[in-house]
Amino acid sequence: MNGAESLVATLLGAGVNVCFANPGTSEMHFVAALDRHPEMRCILCLFEGGATGAADGYFRMKGDVAATLLHLGPGLANGTANLHNARKAGSGVVNIVGDHATYHLKHESPLKGDLAGVAAVAAHWSRAGVDAAGVAADGAAAVRAARAGNGRIATLMLPADTAWGEAAGPADPGQVPDLQRPSDAAVAAAARQLRVPGAALVLGGSALYGADAERAGRIAAAAGCDLLADYLVPRMRRGAGAVAIRHLKYIVEENVAALADVSSMVLCGARRPVSFFAYPGKPSLPEAPGSAVFDLCDPEMDVGWTLKALEAALDAGSAEPARRGLALPDVPEGALTPQSVAAAVALVLPEEAIVVEESITNAAPLLVATETARGHDLLSVTGGAIGFGLPSAVGAAVACPERRVLALTGDGSAMYTVQSLWTMARERLNVTVLVYANRGYRILHRELVNVGVTDVRRNAQRMFDMEDPELDWVAMAKGHGVGAVRVEDAAGLVAALRDGFARQGPFLIEVPV
Amino acid sequence: MNGAESLVATLLGAGVNVCFANPGTSEMHFVAALDRHPEMRCILCLFEGGATGAADGYFRMKGDVAATLLHLGPGLANGTANLHNARKAGSGVVNIVGDHATYHLKHESPLKGDLAGVAAVAAHWSRAGVDAAGVAADGAAAVRAARAGNGRIATLMLPADTAWGEAAGPADPGQVPDLQRPSDAAVAAAARQLRVPGAALVLGGSALYGADAERAGRIAAAAGCDLLADYLVPRMRRGAGAVAIRHLKYIVEENVAALADVSSMVLCGARRPVSFFAYPGKPSLPEAPGSAVFDLCDPEMDVGWTLKALEAALDAGSAEPARRGLALPDVPEGALTPQSVAAAVALVLPEEAIVVEESITNAAPLLVATETARGHDLLSVTGGAIGFGLPSAVGAAVACPERRVLALTGDGSAMYTVQSLWTMARERLNVTVLVYANRGYRILHRELVNVGVTDVRRNAQRMFDMEDPELDWVAMAKGHGVGAVRVEDAAGLVAALRDGFARQGPFLIEVPV
Repeated sequence: MNGAESLVATLLGAGVNVCFANPGTSEMHFVAALDRHPEMRCILCLFEGGATGAADGYFRMKGDVAATLLHLGPGLANGTANLHNARKAGSGVVNIVGDHATYHLKHESPLKGDLAGVAAVAAHWSRAGVDAAGVAADGAAAVRAARAGNGRIATLMLPADTAWGEAAGPADPGQVPDLQRPSDAAVAAAARQLRVPGAALVLGGSALYGADAERAGRIAAAAGCDLLADYLVPRMRRGAGAVAIRHLKYIVEENVAALADVSSMVLCGARRPVSFFAYPGKPSLPEAPGSAVFDLCDPEMDVGWTLKALEAALDAGSAEPARRGLALPDVPEGALTPQSVAAAVALVLPEEAIVVEESITNAAPLLVATETARGHDLLSVTGGAIGFGLPSAVGAAVACPERRVLALTGDGSAMYTVQSLWTMARERLNVTVLVYANRGYRILHRELVNVGVTDVRRNAQRMFDMEDPELDWVAMAKGHGVGAVRVEDAAGLVAALRDGFARQGPFLIEVPV
Repeated sequence: MNGAESLVATLLGAGVNVCFANPGTSEMHFVAALDRHPEMRCILCLFEGGATGAADGYFRMKGDVAATLLHLGPGLANGTANLHNARKAGSGVVNIVGDHATYHLKHESPLKGDLAGVAAVAAHWSRAGVDAAGVAADGAAAVRAARAGNGRIATLMLPADTAWGEAAGPADPGQVPDLQRPSDAAVAAAARQLRVPGAALVLGGSALYGADAERAGRIAAAAGCDLLADYLVPRMRRGAGAVAIRHLKYIVEENVAALADVSSMVLCGARRPVSFFAYPGKPSLPEAPGSAVFDLCDPEMDVGWTLKALEAALDAGSAEPARRGLALPDVPEGALTPQSVAAAVALVLPEEAIVVEESITNAAPLLVATETARGHDLLSVTGGAIGFGLPSAVGAAVACPERRVLALTGDGSAMYTVQSLWTMARERLNVTVLVYANRGYRILHRELVNVGVTDVRRNAQRMFDMEDPELDWVAMAKGHGVGAVRVEDAAGLVAALRDGFARQGPFLIEVPV
């Protein structure tokens, strides 16, 4: 057995059986080993950001790690923006990155570069294999690292000779490392605080869906406190039946207003809310001046245990959470506007859909309209690095083949990782892609006005507009092997969404708005 | 004047008047400043690798630096693969990367990340601005750094508040720093060595084109030595009239054979030839065992001065270089094969074309056939990071609007930075793109056989093939606003190439081969 074979056996033994791959020559022995193990599902991505973003979406919905397979420093660099998003989401990912053979690394070959430097940018854990005999243990350590702290980025660099050299058998990653818990005193103090008027429990991680969100709902009902989520969420249960959680926005001023009456925040699975960007004269922190922050349980700690402890301290076990009701909009008609698009989506969104949200300028009305749509999960671009939408939709669809995925994306953001369309077609994934074709980086137009420029001339216009020529999304989809339609009005969009959700495999809808 | 304005004025004053841009919110004040200076040509790229690759192609043909404008750590990470290629080419690039305001950086906002860590991967020089008053000097230092050593990567991180705060005027980068020169004794020793039978002068950088290549040709004629270039060249003059330089290959065994009779190598503007990858039982260095290497002048030193000194030492001023003749192939007919495609290109390649070469599996016959085509410049993917072809074609076309650019690319490699097609259309660039549509990573198939796998099963096949579905390059081009045709035979390719070269603006030819 060579090192590559021992690594593949280690991954499979550890329950890692999906690999989002963009391999090259230095990974050839690893590919050969994968070829002997059809129980590993290898999914080709035509750009590395597609692979890392898919692993992020997969983790968010599956709750466990996938592997990526990437090629040297440039390949990992291409995957780094979506690893940044995954890191901010608290997603676990195991990156296997091929490198030159150890003895070749001293030479200035074309692809020689600072692979370890690239790895350090996004990874919590990284290691370069030193010999074939150690590769199985390295792989086991990577899996263990990726599962620690509720999900981390682990990057194993695999020199080619550690893959082709002789090894023993696979290694066992063992149990997931214990999560840190707050002290009993901290829990008791937080429980007392939540009963004080003006208190909010700020939720993140697993507290935004499933049993933990239910528990948070009971806690809020018993304590009489507010429930809050920051704007960008890794995964959040929304729509009919979901525990009611107030969701912060992108705009600084709106968050300042939303938090004006919140005098204390207890953080559970969440970090302190922060403005997306700084602007002259606007606050970095949207919280009310003088409000108190209790950092009870950060996103890497034991969120489930903490909520159980709070529930017990507040005797909240039989409280009934406040929930969202079902309230579908009327069938939208007429022109395509951000509002009519939002209504169309809210109206036809299927039960248990997974909504990947990267609609940028168009997000605000969409998030309002879907709050009372059928029950669904929302995934957002947690690290703000656009190019997350299409890849993470791939990963979510692989994780949950029985559910429908709706990827909402701006045309600007979709272009960063447009290659993921092909992977959707290749893998017959049930993803409906809605492209807001507003022909530009509209968000930047708005920001330019924010900095006081009202007389936009040629340079700014040409850096923010994607006109002349316009992107043709129906042709773009066809190029990648995906069926598509361009809709002209709200009724057309409703029909196209219904068509997309009824299909086997992906479908793209171009929405000029 | 704010910091952004002082930086734009600094760049323009230093002669940097092209900016390949993919901006975001944190660069808004810089965009506003660019908007007040139409003399800066701002070229929008829809992916950051398109911007950095364009700056590389621009430098190779223009001999001076362009700026890029990128958005925080993820944006720079997306541009890093092509900065790796640029670094290996010895291209100078000035990256301006927006960052959060200095006081916002302490918070865990979504886009907060290790920007300095990303910058360190590819840059020779990097600096984070600390206040608006210093930004002009920072920009001047970046330009000076990018012009040093024949061309380097300089990355200036621009916190948003250093752009919007009050500054004084622009700063002057001053003279390009002096290049290091070899000692007189080293030149004399090299000149003696070149007269010894079996000696080769290995050329790189400016020695591969223009006056320096002519000088190298005279030196070889006077000394009776061989002239060599490594496989991947930043820019090389080829075709009729070009000084005859033996060009190494991708395949290790071919280079071992080519160097079997070379007993000593004098390096001038070049590094010691190294195999692209290591393989079990094959050498990392293709040179003959026991051959001597004289590291006379590395790529960052004064190549032009060194060649003049060698020419004088060898009294070579009136020698006549050996040159390539013009020998065009017959008009190819019949099926599309790597050979008939190469013949078609060699036949119709216009005088003074710029050939961007990323044809991977199909490169070998192409490079043979074009050796005696009309005179042209060849740019290759110096760092081995694919996704170089289309972006660098953009930059080369911007640098040389009077010349025709032919971008030769595999379908696999074109997908990494396919967004550059749109920039070609937007800027009306005279680029003809030839996509070898072999429906897969054919080079990896070959490599898998090299590692002993002959029975390819499902996982390997699905990681190397881009079938099911096939990419439709005519639709893909249409999606980006570029006209395209799919050809079916060699005669069709000849006609399509002639059509492409006669057009104003870009054209794409899909070549199933």
